[in-house]
Amino acid sequence: MNEKVYLNGTYFERNDALVSVFDRGFLFSDAVYEVTAVIKGFLVDWESHLSRLKNSLKEINLSFEMQEKEIFSIQKKLIDVNKIDEGLVYIQITRGVGHRDFNFEEDHFEPTIVIFTQEKKILNTNKAEKGIKIVTFDEMRWKRRDIKTTQLLASSLAKTEASKRGKDDCWFIEDGFITEGSSSNAFIINDNGEVITRELSPKILGGITRSSVLEFCKKNNLNFRESGFTKIEAKYACEAFITSATNFVVPVIEIDGHKIGKGVVGNYVKEIQKLYFNEIQKRLS
Amino acid sequence: MNEKVYLNGTYFERNDALVSVFDRGFLFSDAVYEVTAVIKGFLVDWESHLSRLKNSLKEINLSFEMQEKEIFSIQKKLIDVNKIDEGLVYIQITRGVGHRDFNFEEDHFEPTIVIFTQEKKILNTNKAEKGIKIVTFDEMRWKRRDIKTTQLLASSLAKTEASKRGKDDCWFIEDGFITEGSSSNAFIINDNGEVITRELSPKILGGITRSSVLEFCKKNNLNFRESGFTKIEAKYACEAFITSATNFVVPVIEIDGHKIGKGVVGNYVKEIQKLYFNEIQKRLS
Repeated sequence: MNEKVYLNGTYFERNDALVSVFDRGFLFSDAVYEVTAVIKGFLVDWESHLSRLKNSLKEINLSFEMQEKEIFSIQKKLIDVNKIDEGLVYIQITRGVGHRDFNFEEDHFEPTIVIFTQEKKILNTNKAEKGIKIVTFDEMRWKRRDIKTTQLLASSLAKTEASKRGKDDCWFIEDGFITEGSSSNAFIINDNGEVITRELSPKILGGITRSSVLEFCKKNNLNFRESGFTKIEAKYACEAFITSATNFVVPVIEIDGHKIGKGVVGNYVKEIQKLYFNEIQKRLS
Repeated sequence: MNEKVYLNGTYFERNDALVSVFDRGFLFSDAVYEVTAVIKGFLVDWESHLSRLKNSLKEINLSFEMQEKEIFSIQKKLIDVNKIDEGLVYIQITRGVGHRDFNFEEDHFEPTIVIFTQEKKILNTNKAEKGIKIVTFDEMRWKRRDIKTTQLLASSLAKTEASKRGKDDCWFIEDGFITEGSSSNAFIINDNGEVITRELSPKILGGITRSSVLEFCKKNNLNFRESGFTKIEAKYACEAFITSATNFVVPVIEIDGHKIGKGVVGNYVKEIQKLYFNEIQKRLS
């Protein structure tokens, strides 16, 4: 596999892309990241991902000076040389290498920037067509889920546990309400066809796909509401789905062993998938 | 600086100790660690740190096979070649390198093990003699603080913010009660000379020094109680202190701008520092 990885100005073979064990990304999860979908070699919603990355950097007080167009051209180059037709491009920025200290105020750091690609089927996946089964877990993550940091162990453990139980993913519950999935936003649709997803706050990540779906609902006169919903509401919802940058819109057909609606992919979700896909197609062409 | 770092079986120069950007420690904070104090070249409470490390590994389902005596001899060797008289030895174990995926169930990993040393003044520090000033912040960390993972950005941001405000450290508050410090356990002493620290639970790390201090209190007939306390109780406490593996017992003389007791190091804390130091001396000799 002749795959290239960008690291601090150089394009390395995958196995040669190495960082210091004293990188704060490795010792303190002092790092933020973004994952952008690639379809037919195009980056989906690139500006929104870059804008969120800049916000994450600001929130953790990490100064990073690289030009936007330079990031774009590195990502395009990797997609090209790694021949990614469908998949994703990943970017991570850490505070850099230094003396190990919780207090980073008194040291000077050169941020570490890593960009790599991954092949991944995004369109017409089995999950998008058949739907997924989820389990709920207590929310265990830190309280600033709006910042996309690499403090991801809690999510990773939860997703793995869901998989061990024969399910596809999990939704987190905090104070009685669903927050979001391990790496996705959670939606339900009630009997009136109203699309409901948690309002923006530090409790959830402001998903780019989440925001696009709401925008397309508005444009197409579909009712939606941004508010919390409980597990009971999800169980007795008409339909449910998740959104994420590299899964787009995926129906949820079961929650904690309980079928949602008829336990098959419903018409509202199919409509939203179609809307989303058509809009994305327009942006790519 | 001719400093050696142990990484996966090899002793490297500091600048040559490198890990893959695809290490899950770097991408997901999928890693646990321990920091052990070194005094006169001896490791303080080594067995307790190793036992906690094994527990952290178990809690995140990370299988790691290395022999305890091998870890011990690597740590001793580094202390020796790096000429650490007073300082610390750090060990981190990650799940290893793989395809980036939240779900780690379907991949096979070889854990990454890193061990390095750091010089640090531990005995007779200015802080231990004069005391420190702390500020309180809302608890922002994940909910399993009993597992010592590298998801440390929240603590790091908090400690840095405390420093920016001209203070030495912070205590976190959750549901009205102090949990612990950014990398230490929190104690107060009330007017009756009773030593109070938060009871063990997933909300705090079971500090090795915390546990030794309680053991020495018991042995010396000092009253202590393991229970939560509020910021108001801390403000109006007679004395206060923190414990950590590489700071031992450090008095707290101010909280959120409010003097604790007379705002100077009190006699109870001095007594506990002496007890702790004498016991540690015995163990080293």
